[in-house]
Amino acid sequence: MRKLLFVLLSIPTLLVSQNDSLVLRKIYDYYLVKGKAYDHLRDLTKNIGGRLSGSPQAAKAVAWAQAIMKASLADTVYLQPCMVPHWERGAKEICLLTANGKKTPLNVTALGSSVGTGEKGLTANVVEVRSFDELEQLGAAVKGKIVFYNVFFDQRHISTGSAYGETVKYRALGASRAAKYGALAVLVRSMSSVADDEPHTGNMRYDTTISRTRIPAVALSYFAADALHAALEKQTSVTVYLETHCKQLPPSPSYNVVAQLNGTVDHKILVSGGHLDSWDNGEGAHDDGAGVVQTIELLYMYKALGLKPRHTIRVVAFMNEENGLAGGQAYAKEAAQKKEVHLAALETDAGGFTPRGFGVDTLNGLYTTVAGLKKLFDPYLTLHLTSEGGGADISPLEEMKVPCIGFEPDSQRYFDIHHTARDVFETVNKRELHLGGAAIGALIYLLDQHL
Amino acid sequence: MRKLLFVLLSIPTLLVSQNDSLVLRKIYDYYLVKGKAYDHLRDLTKNIGGRLSGSPQAAKAVAWAQAIMKASLADTVYLQPCMVPHWERGAKEICLLTANGKKTPLNVTALGSSVGTGEKGLTANVVEVRSFDELEQLGAAVKGKIVFYNVFFDQRHISTGSAYGETVKYRALGASRAAKYGALAVLVRSMSSVADDEPHTGNMRYDTTISRTRIPAVALSYFAADALHAALEKQTSVTVYLETHCKQLPPSPSYNVVAQLNGTVDHKILVSGGHLDSWDNGEGAHDDGAGVVQTIELLYMYKALGLKPRHTIRVVAFMNEENGLAGGQAYAKEAAQKKEVHLAALETDAGGFTPRGFGVDTLNGLYTTVAGLKKLFDPYLTLHLTSEGGGADISPLEEMKVPCIGFEPDSQRYFDIHHTARDVFETVNKRELHLGGAAIGALIYLLDQHL
Repeated sequence: MRKLLFVLLSIPTLLVSQNDSLVLRKIYDYYLVKGKAYDHLRDLTKNIGGRLSGSPQAAKAVAWAQAIMKASLADTVYLQPCMVPHWERGAKEICLLTANGKKTPLNVTALGSSVGTGEKGLTANVVEVRSFDELEQLGAAVKGKIVFYNVFFDQRHISTGSAYGETVKYRALGASRAAKYGALAVLVRSMSSVADDEPHTGNMRYDTTISRTRIPAVALSYFAADALHAALEKQTSVTVYLETHCKQLPPSPSYNVVAQLNGTVDHKILVSGGHLDSWDNGEGAHDDGAGVVQTIELLYMYKALGLKPRHTIRVVAFMNEENGLAGGQAYAKEAAQKKEVHLAALETDAGGFTPRGFGVDTLNGLYTTVAGLKKLFDPYLTLHLTSEGGGADISPLEEMKVPCIGFEPDSQRYFDIHHTARDVFETVNKRELHLGGAAIGALIYLLDQHL
Repeated sequence: MRKLLFVLLSIPTLLVSQNDSLVLRKIYDYYLVKGKAYDHLRDLTKNIGGRLSGSPQAAKAVAWAQAIMKASLADTVYLQPCMVPHWERGAKEICLLTANGKKTPLNVTALGSSVGTGEKGLTANVVEVRSFDELEQLGAAVKGKIVFYNVFFDQRHISTGSAYGETVKYRALGASRAAKYGALAVLVRSMSSVADDEPHTGNMRYDTTISRTRIPAVALSYFAADALHAALEKQTSVTVYLETHCKQLPPSPSYNVVAQLNGTVDHKILVSGGHLDSWDNGEGAHDDGAGVVQTIELLYMYKALGLKPRHTIRVVAFMNEENGLAGGQAYAKEAAQKKEVHLAALETDAGGFTPRGFGVDTLNGLYTTVAGLKKLFDPYLTLHLTSEGGGADISPLEEMKVPCIGFEPDSQRYFDIHHTARDVFETVNKRELHLGGAAIGALIYLLDQHL
């Protein structure tokens, strides 16, 4: 009798689970056979291209996202205003290494938010450091010089994001830390997994609590950093001429682009997003065109499969993730003002590669819920779980205690092309992109059913 | 007291496991930081290139593999003779579609082992079929015509290998099946995951139990197949002119290249291999240069870490996987003659992509053993297990009841480039290749310890 009772009690769970399995198979079939994400990405990258906040391309991207969201027949599509920083690279950077009388041009890219040298450029001796500790030991010895942060990715990490996490501080704060001791500029070895000649840009910031002086900051390609290091090892005096034309213009108005499918049971919200802005040097294909088209596909998938969400599903193409986070902050601010209830927030901003799993916050028991859904993902070779969830755009929501999820595709190739001219459509594989979309679609569907 | 006893009994297991973890970390560190596989692959692909059995390039590849195995300081390196088929493509294939008086060149590639049309070429009407069933229904209606097998990959499969498995029969047996009804030649839609203009070659065979007539067989690129299909839909009469110059020459002598690290406890064997031969149209980078350099790296890794194998570890660069399997058969034959005891055989022949896991035979309990090691691979995001093990080169061993293992990298990109001119070094990512090598190195190490 106890056995029979057990069987009866388990039936509801089994039924839910069987239906979940069937719907997941339909979701994956949709993405793999009919998914539009790849075609949308081609359109965004090839017809608009790089789209840094404040640029005409970013404005075009806003109109583009609005149009394809509307075409999905979502219940609501709207623009959410935000004021974004407007930084421009200007003319191509010049970096000339002079060692032993021989001049060698080095491939560099100005870091986002950096001041430029202006037309006159600057010439100075170079001091190499391997860490902030080394910089502190040198102290005033770097005065009047260019500081070269020569820090490699630690290739032993299995996730390349861990190597990035360890080194990105030199890009972000290297200028202010060196300016404190009177350095004239900083050169940073690119945050790169691969040895090649592509410089990787990315944002830096001037921390006025460290130094009030704003000095130019540029990234050297991996090979350029090697060449500079070799010159410094062999020669007693090495000078570098640096010329960058970047500048910060006044902030300008821009928008998050938002679409939603209204909940049929309540208006609590599940939000999924990627960021629409990208660096200017490439096409912003993996970072984060991929995330934008994957998350917009949610709208098309729900319509194509005739699924009715229980809660409200909202899709956001965030503006200004790369150099300010104005979009993410505007979204969270409005959510707070309107007292919206968010069940969870998901971000896809790690490239359009083969899905491996999700990083899920332990907040509100979300991690436990997702862990309980793990078996449903077995046929799709997805759902490696970590307990560190989130993404930059949804981090202001996380501060408001919304449990956050970061989509985690395979990380091996991301930092080969991240923030470089090589982040173009051709490096995205259609099946990988669509499988990532399907993993996100499946998880959002399941959370809507089970939260 | 019972609790204490339990603790005492568990200690040996725990100690083994902790040491295993530590050695695995060292193995991964070796591959990720010092691994030579990527440099070896550049050498093989760029300095030798495509290397079909019987070609001068295949002979060069034998000498190359022998040299880098010797450089590893393996205990023994030797050549194992085998007679291989010698098929040559000859001059570039021509395929001209004529529809409504308009001529369109189509991108094609002769299938391996196919006869050629010769200089005169052949012209005929085309009949499209979607399956062997459709062919059987047409029967004698295909007489004097060219049969076009227009079968797509089913994109719903999560593993692209499953889609390949379903369609490859048209490439392999399509000619004999059509020749039975008097067809003059066959055109096969390429076995491809991606819509582009690259034709995919691959082996076919004439099955004389079906038909004694040998007719030419070629693969159309995905776009070429689309164009032919569109023409057939619109026009009543479509002809194709086909000209191929391939031919089968007399078999020629070649070799497997074998190296081993002698066992310190016994001489039972763990063998790991990839295949040295490749198709002629590309550089054989993923198929299977990647597998060859990953498995040769085992030798370097054991030496670099000072590991002493308990059993004998043998590494084989097999010859003639693509069009005959002469190497795999020669290896198994010699193993049987010498009454060698093989504990397990592993093959890496699915590309140098991010490792996902292994397919492991249930034979002799090997699957259970590997499943017991699963947790050790958690930090490396690897060890998805399936119970279908093996690889073509080790299939003759499997017939002799040796339990077999197939290394399974991520499959999404493989059939974009498989057997095409795009299978070149540039499509291989260094970290993905080395992580795959590390997964193989780690599993071989663990099997040597635990079998």
